Amino acid sequence: MAQTTGMALTAPGGSWEPYTFERRALRPDDVAVRVTWCGVCHTDLHAAEALTAGSAPLVPGHEFVGEVTAVGGDVTGFAVGDAVAVGNIVDSCGTCGACRAGEEQFCVDFPTLTYGGRDRVDGSVTLGAYARDYVVREPFAYPLPGGLDPAGVAPLMCAGATVFEPLRRWDVGVGQLVGVVGLGGLGHLAVKFAKAMGARVAVFTTSPGKEAGARALGADEVVVSGDAEAMAAQAGRFDFILDTASAKHDPSPYLRALRMDGTLCMLGIPDRYEPEALALLLGYKRLAASGSAGRPRTREMLEFAARHGIVADVERVPARAVGDALARLARNDVRWRFVLDLSDLG
Amino acid sequence: MAQTTGMALTAPGGSWEPYTFERRALRPDDVAVRVTWCGVCHTDLHAAEALTAGSAPLVPGHEFVGEVTAVGGDVTGFAVGDAVAVGNIVDSCGTCGACRAGEEQFCVDFPTLTYGGRDRVDGSVTLGAYARDYVVREPFAYPLPGGLDPAGVAPLMCAGATVFEPLRRWDVGVGQLVGVVGLGGLGHLAVKFAKAMGARVAVFTTSPGKEAGARALGADEVVVSGDAEAMAAQAGRFDFILDTASAKHDPSPYLRALRMDGTLCMLGIPDRYEPEALALLLGYKRLAASGSAGRPRTREMLEFAARHGIVADVERVPARAVGDALARLARNDVRWRFVLDLSDLG
Repeated sequence: MAQTTGMALTAPGGSWEPYTFERRALRPDDVAVRVTWCGVCHTDLHAAEALTAGSAPLVPGHEFVGEVTAVGGDVTGFAVGDAVAVGNIVDSCGTCGACRAGEEQFCVDFPTLTYGGRDRVDGSVTLGAYARDYVVREPFAYPLPGGLDPAGVAPLMCAGATVFEPLRRWDVGVGQLVGVVGLGGLGHLAVKFAKAMGARVAVFTTSPGKEAGARALGADEVVVSGDAEAMAAQAGRFDFILDTASAKHDPSPYLRALRMDGTLCMLGIPDRYEPEALALLLGYKRLAASGSAGRPRTREMLEFAARHGIVADVERVPARAVGDALARLARNDVRWRFVLDLSDLG
Repeated sequence: MAQTTGMALTAPGGSWEPYTFERRALRPDDVAVRVTWCGVCHTDLHAAEALTAGSAPLVPGHEFVGEVTAVGGDVTGFAVGDAVAVGNIVDSCGTCGACRAGEEQFCVDFPTLTYGGRDRVDGSVTLGAYARDYVVREPFAYPLPGGLDPAGVAPLMCAGATVFEPLRRWDVGVGQLVGVVGLGGLGHLAVKFAKAMGARVAVFTTSPGKEAGARALGADEVVVSGDAEAMAAQAGRFDFILDTASAKHDPSPYLRALRMDGTLCMLGIPDRYEPEALALLLGYKRLAASGSAGRPRTREMLEFAARHGIVADVERVPARAVGDALARLARNDVRWRFVLDLSDLG
C-alpha cells in the first residue's frame, strides 16, 4: 500500500478537495504510475452530479499519462521510468468472447472502469487519476508514443480511442464525406483523425462561434445545426456521421444527411436518443430498414429462384373471391400467400 | 385504349365488385399483359382500409404474372405470347442517382407504384393487377423464369423481391444464423431464400401453431416470441434478423438477439417502430452505437496518432483547479479538452 493524493468530492454537493488515500499494494501483474497528465472528460461531470453519499468519495480521471514508478514481479513489458498511457478500462474478465476478440469494452462481465468501477480482486471501488499515482494491470497500460506532447496524449486515451474506434470500424477514408456532430473533447479529435484518414470532414455544431475553431482543426465544412436551410442542404450527402454531442437530441436531421447505405453512429451515453431501447444498439448492433428492390436485384432474385426452384407457397383464389381472401388475410388465415385467379373474370 | 375487368372497391367501406375500366393505349415502350396470377399483399389490405372517396376506385394487385398480348413499337425484349412477371414498381424517373444505380425503389422523384401510383405521362392514378389486363413499361416487365409454377412466381415479384433484397445486401450465407420475424407472405419466402443461401434459419413467431409450418419451409429453429425464457436464450446469437412482422412491436428483443455487429433489418412499413423518425432509416441508412475501444484498437490508435502527429488540443489546468475546469466544462467553455496537471499536488 502506498499513499497518494488526489482531487475528490467526498460528499454530494461538496467541493473538490485534495484527498489522501491508499493505492493497493502491487499485485504480480500491476504497474504503478506516477500520473503526469489526466484529461477531464464529460463523464467526470456526470459522475460528480450523480454522486451519492454511499458512493463517495469520488476521484475521477480516466485518460492519463505518467511514468512507471514500480512494477509487480510478473510484469515484463514495462520498467521503472517508462512513460505510459492509461484509458478508461483497467481490467476485464479476459475470457469472454468480447475479451478474447480484444473488445474489452463489451466484456460480458462488464469491464472494470478506471474510476467508479469495481476491482475484480478485492471488490473495492476504483478511484481515478485525478491523483498523483495510479496502479493498473499491465495489459491495460500502453507505452506512451514518442514525439507527442504527453499532455495532449492524455485525452487520446478516452476521447481519442472512443472516436477512433468507430471511424476505423466503419472504414472512414479517402473519397468519403464524414460528418462530426458536436465539437468538444470527442468531436475535435474525430475531426483530426478523420482528416488524417483522408476523408473530407464537415462539423455540425449548435454554436456558430465554433466555425473558425473547426476549420483550424482541419474541418472542410461547418454546418450550424440550428440553420434549417443549411441542414436541409445536407440531405443525402454523408457517408458516415459520428455524433459526439452530449445533449439529448433528435437523430433525424443526421439520418437525412446520410447518403444511401450511410451510417450514423452515436457516441457515448446512448440515452440521448429516444427510445431508450436504442441503448441496445451498443455492441455495434445496427438497425436499418429495407423495402422493395430495384431492377437488377429483381432480375437476380428471379435467376436465383429459378436456380433453386424457389416459389411461394400459395393458395389460389378466384378473383371474385378477393373479398374473402382479404378477410382471411386480416385474420392471418393463409399459408402463405393468396394468389388471385384472374381467369375467373372471363 | 382497351377495356379490361378487375376487382375494385369503388367507395370506402364498399364491397369488392367487378369493375370495368380502360387500360391506356400502348405507348412505344409499353407491354400489354394478360394477367394470369396476382398475389394478395398485406399492402392491399391497408390500401382498402385507407380508401377515401377521392381516391376511389381502388384496384390493388402489384405482384403478378401473365402473357404478353401486345407490344409498343419500340419494345425489343418481349413479343406477343411471352410469359412475364411484374412487381410493385412500374416506372421511375430513370435519371436520378438511385435509378442509375438500379435502386428504383429509392427514386428521388418517387417510383410509380403498380397501383395507387401516379402515371408519369398522363398523371392518372394507376390501377393494379386484380384485373385481367395490365399495361407496363418494358423496363419493368421481367421474363417469367421457366420451370417454376407461375402462380408461385407472382408473390415473388413483391414479397420475394422485398425479402431477397436485404438478405443479399447483408450478405446472408453459409455459416450464419439468420432470424426471420413473422411467418406470412414475406417471412415464408425469407426462410426459403435464406436457407437456399446456405444460412441456418430461425423463425420468430407469435403463433405457436406455426412451428410445423415453419419447419416444413426449412426453418432449423422456431422461437415463440411470447415465450420470455425462449427469447432470453437467443441473446447474442444472430448474425442477421429480418423483421417481416406487420404489427407494431418493440425491436428490443431482436436487437438483444443479435451478436456483436449483427444487423436487424425491418421490412415494409417503417412506422411499426417508435419513434416514427426511424422511417428515415429507409434507404439503407443505418443507426448504430459505439463507445470506448478495446486493447488492439487502442494500440492501433496510438500508433496512428504517432504516425500522424495527432494529439488533443488541451488547456492545462492545475489539479487543484479541477472545480473551475468542471464548471467551465459545464458551460462548454473549453477548446477542446482540459488536462489536469497533477504536479500541482506535489
